[in-house]
Amino acid sequence: MMDFSPDRLARLSGMLKRRGVILPAFEIHGGIAGLYDFGPVGGRLRNKVIQKWINHWQSLGNIVEISCPTVTPFAVLEASGHVGEFSDYLTECLDCEEASRADHLVETIHPNADSLSKEQLSEIIETNEIKCPNCGEENWGELKSQNLMFNTKIGVGSSAREGFLRPETAQGMFTSFPALYRHFRERLPFGAIQTGKGYRNEISPRQGMIRLREFNMAELEYFIDPNSDVNHDFSNLNYEVVLIPDDEKEIQIEINKATEMGIIRHPTVGYFMALTYEFLINVGINPQYIRFRQHLSTEMAHYAQDCWDAEILGSYGWIECVGIAHRGCYDLEAHENATGQRLRAWRLFDEPKEIQKDGWTVDGSKAGPAFRQLSQKVKQYVETLPPESNFPISTSIDGTEIEIHEEHVKRVQTKEMISGEWYIPHVVEPAFGIDRIIWHLIDHTFKEIEKSNEIYNRLELPDVVAPVDVAVLPLFEKDGMDILAQELHKKFCSKSNIFSIYDGSGSIGRRYARADEIGVPICITVDHDSLVDNTVTIRNRDTTEQKRVNIGELPFF
Amino acid sequence: MMDFSPDRLARLSGMLKRRGVILPAFEIHGGIAGLYDFGPVGGRLRNKVIQKWINHWQSLGNIVEISCPTVTPFAVLEASGHVGEFSDYLTECLDCEEASRADHLVETIHPNADSLSKEQLSEIIETNEIKCPNCGEENWGELKSQNLMFNTKIGVGSSAREGFLRPETAQGMFTSFPALYRHFRERLPFGAIQTGKGYRNEISPRQGMIRLREFNMAELEYFIDPNSDVNHDFSNLNYEVVLIPDDEKEIQIEINKATEMGIIRHPTVGYFMALTYEFLINVGINPQYIRFRQHLSTEMAHYAQDCWDAEILGSYGWIECVGIAHRGCYDLEAHENATGQRLRAWRLFDEPKEIQKDGWTVDGSKAGPAFRQLSQKVKQYVETLPPESNFPISTSIDGTEIEIHEEHVKRVQTKEMISGEWYIPHVVEPAFGIDRIIWHLIDHTFKEIEKSNEIYNRLELPDVVAPVDVAVLPLFEKDGMDILAQELHKKFCSKSNIFSIYDGSGSIGRRYARADEIGVPICITVDHDSLVDNTVTIRNRDTTEQKRVNIGELPFF
Repeated sequence: MMDFSPDRLARLSGMLKRRGVILPAFEIHGGIAGLYDFGPVGGRLRNKVIQKWINHWQSLGNIVEISCPTVTPFAVLEASGHVGEFSDYLTECLDCEEASRADHLVETIHPNADSLSKEQLSEIIETNEIKCPNCGEENWGELKSQNLMFNTKIGVGSSAREGFLRPETAQGMFTSFPALYRHFRERLPFGAIQTGKGYRNEISPRQGMIRLREFNMAELEYFIDPNSDVNHDFSNLNYEVVLIPDDEKEIQIEINKATEMGIIRHPTVGYFMALTYEFLINVGINPQYIRFRQHLSTEMAHYAQDCWDAEILGSYGWIECVGIAHRGCYDLEAHENATGQRLRAWRLFDEPKEIQKDGWTVDGSKAGPAFRQLSQKVKQYVETLPPESNFPISTSIDGTEIEIHEEHVKRVQTKEMISGEWYIPHVVEPAFGIDRIIWHLIDHTFKEIEKSNEIYNRLELPDVVAPVDVAVLPLFEKDGMDILAQELHKKFCSKSNIFSIYDGSGSIGRRYARADEIGVPICITVDHDSLVDNTVTIRNRDTTEQKRVNIGELPFF
Repeated sequence: MMDFSPDRLARLSGMLKRRGVILPAFEIHGGIAGLYDFGPVGGRLRNKVIQKWINHWQSLGNIVEISCPTVTPFAVLEASGHVGEFSDYLTECLDCEEASRADHLVETIHPNADSLSKEQLSEIIETNEIKCPNCGEENWGELKSQNLMFNTKIGVGSSAREGFLRPETAQGMFTSFPALYRHFRERLPFGAIQTGKGYRNEISPRQGMIRLREFNMAELEYFIDPNSDVNHDFSNLNYEVVLIPDDEKEIQIEINKATEMGIIRHPTVGYFMALTYEFLINVGINPQYIRFRQHLSTEMAHYAQDCWDAEILGSYGWIECVGIAHRGCYDLEAHENATGQRLRAWRLFDEPKEIQKDGWTVDGSKAGPAFRQLSQKVKQYVETLPPESNFPISTSIDGTEIEIHEEHVKRVQTKEMISGEWYIPHVVEPAFGIDRIIWHLIDHTFKEIEKSNEIYNRLELPDVVAPVDVAVLPLFEKDGMDILAQELHKKFCSKSNIFSIYDGSGSIGRRYARADEIGVPICITVDHDSLVDNTVTIRNRDTTEQKRVNIGELPFF
C-alpha cells in the first residue's frame, strides 16, 4: 500500500507548484478557489493525456471527434434538465454570511450525504447541532437549492439572451445528432467524442484538483439501437477488476463475466468499463487502486438508467474519476420534445410488415377553402389524431385559432406495408474527469527515494504522458560541450511531438535529480569524450542505468 | 486568381454544413449567431491544426505549453486594461431597438472605421443619414461604449466575485510569469504558448467563421530582454512576402531584409512573421493570398508598440488571421502595478558596477519600540523614500495610520558594488485566430471540378491536416469484401493518430467523390481479386491515379 498521508500530499503539492506542473491560477492577483493552471511542465502532460484519450476511442473505428461551444443558450440546458436539476443545497451562516454546501456539513455523519433530500439535510444539521466551519456559530439560514451553472448574457441590449457555461460537453453531442447520423450514413452504432472545458460554479471548492470550478472533460456519447443484439470483442480486454455492485458487496471479477452474469446491466456499459480500465492503466494509474462502483438509484443523475463510477484511490481517498452511464433515450427525447425536431434513427425490419392504419385525413375540397394557407398544416395535425376523435376540434396552428368540423375530414382505414420504423437511440456515455485522472497518475507515480541520507523525488510517468521526453545536459558549459548539447537539444525538439529540455547549471547529480522529479524518462549527457568520439551517456530515469551510445543511435533520431 | 464569388461561398458553406465540417451550433434549438460547431469531419481538422501549431513553436526549443482557466477574475482584466479598453461603440435604433456597431454602420464610408473616435463616428452617421440595417429608419440613440467581454459571477451568495470569460489567452501567460521564469532557470529569452477558447460578446456577429463570439485561439508570449542583441537564424526562412508598411505602399521583400532595413522594427517580430508564414503555408494556405499589414498608430491595440497582421484573402476579402505584436513591457508592468508582485528578470552586468546609495533607513533603537510588530514594514517603507524627504511623514501600513518622525530614521550614504539589475522583460506576441485560419485553408483548397458535365468537389488539404487519413471501400458489401475492408479499416484506426472511414454504399465513383469532398488523401478499394491475391487498389485524391499494391505495403501499416 502506498503512502497517501497528508504529509506526503503536502510535499507532493509543493513539488507540483515549485516545478510548474499544477499551480493555483492567477496567484499574483491572490488566486481564486477552484481555478488551476497547468504550468510549464504540466501543460504538455495535460495535452498528451487528452490526445492519448482521443486516440484511444478513435481507434474503435466508428467514433468521431467534434467540438462545440462552451457558451450554451438557456433553451439547450433547460431541455436537458440542467436548469432544473443541476443544483446543490446551500445554507448561509446568519452570523458570518459564509455559504456552505449542506451535504458537506453532514458528510461525516451520513455516508451518502449528496443523496439526501432538503428535509433530511435540514434535520441532520439541526439534530446534530452542526456549526459553521468558518465562524463556529450555529445559526443557519434556510436551505436553498442553488444551481451550479455559471451564467452569462449572450449579446447586448434588448436582444441579449440568457446563457450558461456548459456543465458537461455531452449536450453539444446530443444537439449534433442530426449531423452525426448523416455522417455515419444512418447506420448505428456510432459515437462522438469531445474534449474541452466544463464548468461548475462550486459553492466552496476544496481538495485541490479534485473539485474545480473549471475543469477538463472528455466524454464519449455512443448511440445504440436498444433492440439490437450487441457482441463486443473482449478478447484483448479480459481484465479482472474490483466491482462494487449496488448491493455493496465488493467482488473481484472479469468485466466480461460480470456483464454475462448481468451484474453490469448492459454489454456496452461493460465494454466501455473495460476500455476505460485499459486507458487508465496505459496512462499510469496503478491498477491496484482502481475500482468500479455502481450508483445507487438514489444517487443516480437525473438522466441515468444505470451508472458505474471508476473510482481511484489516492491522497484524497477513493475519488470518482470516470462515470460510465447508460443514459437511455433521456437526452435525445428531451431535445426532441423541446424543439420538435426528429432526433431518431430508422430501424429496418427484417422483412416488411403489414399494418392496419386507422385514422383521419382532411377532405381537401372542404378543408382547402376553409383553411387556405394553413391547410397543409391542418392535414398534418388531423393525421395525428386517434381514430376515436370527435369533431369539432379546436386548436391553434401558427398562432391562429381554428376549429375543425366533421365536414373537413374523412376517416381512412387502409392496410400498408412498412419496411421499418423510427426510434430514439439509446446512449451509453463514458465521461472522464481529465484533471482528476492527471492528479492520480501523478499521485501514483510520485516516488520519494532515500539515497545517502537525502530524499530524491522521482515521477515514474509512462513515456506516453511524460511532459518532457528527454533532457540534454552538457557536463560543463564550455569547450564546445554546451554547443553540442544545444545542437542535440534542438534536433530532439525538431522531431514531431518530441520535447527536450536543455539544462546546463549545477552538478550532473543535481540535474539528474531535477529531471527525475518531473518524470523525464531519459537524460543525455555530453562530456569531453563526446567532442572526440561522438558518443554520449544516456541514463534511464527508473533504473538509473547509464550507457554510452553513439549520437546517431539515440532514440527519436 | 481563385473564384471568391458569393455564389461559390454559398456552395462551399452548404458543403461544409452538409458534410459536418463546420456548422451552426445548437441549430435544432434555433442556433445563435456567432457560435459554431466543428462537426464529425471538422473536429479532427481543428485538432490537427492546433497540434501542428503547438509542435511548430515547441520545436524552437525554449517554448513551453501552458493551460490556464477561461474564467478570469475581474482584477486580472482590470489590470490588463480590458475592463476599460476592450470595447466597441454601440448605438440602438430608437424605432426597432436593434443594436448596431457604429463602426459597421460607416464602414462603406470610411476605410478605417474601427479607428474612429466616438465624436467622429457620430458625425459620419449624422451627415451621411445612415439608416438602421434592420428597419430602415434613421432614428439613432446616443453612441455608447460597450465592453465586449462576457461576464459572470464566480461563487455564490455574498462571497461571489465578478469575473469574465477571457478575451485572449495571453493574460494567463503574463500572470504565470513567475512560474515560467523559474522553469527556465531565470534565463531569457523564453516563451509560453497556449491554445484554447477566447470570447468576445460581439454586438452583431456576421461573416460565418470570421467573427465569432467564442473562438479557438493560439498565442505565443515570448519574453525578451530589450537590451539584448538578438540574432535569429533566418536561413530556412528566406520567404519573399508582401508587406504593407504603415506608409501604405505595398512591397514584395524577404522578411529578413525588411527586418535589416528597419521596415519591421524589431528582429523578433520579423522572425515570428517568417515562422507564421511557414506555419500558414504548411497547413494549406495559398502563399499568393497572404500579406502582412502594419497597424497604423491609430488602430493599434492599447498594449501594442508595433503590430503586423497576417491577412489572408478569401471569400470575405482580406481578413486578419494572425497579429504579431510587440507588446513592450505593457502587460508585466500593468500586473506588477496592480499586484505589487515583482514580474521582472535579472540582468547580469558584464562587470560589477559601483553605485552611490543615498537614502534612509530606520534607527532600530527608536523605531522598534515605536512601531513594534510593524517595524519591519516601516523599515521597508522608509528605505524607498528619496533622499530629499522631510519628516514627519504620515502613512498607512496594514491599515494602521502611523507617523514617522526624524528620530525614527537615519540617513545612509554608502557605495555599493552591484552585479546586475532587475528589469521588466518585453514581450513579442504572435496571436493566431485558429477558426479564421481553418476557414481560409478550406476556402483555398476547395476545388470545384467539372467532369462529364457534372461538378465534383475536392478539398485539396495537405495530409498534415486532412481530417480523415484514408477511406476503405469494399467494391461490394458481400463475398467477404466487406469483412476484409472492415479489417483494414480497423487496422488503420488502431495506428496511433491515423483515422480511417469505412464506406460501403453507392457506386465506387460516388464514394470516391464523397471522400474527395472532405479531403481524404487516399482511398483503398477492396475487390474480388483482393480476396485471392491480397492486393488492393490505392487511389490518390489529387491525381486520381490508381495503383495496385500489396496489403502489406499500404501506407501507415
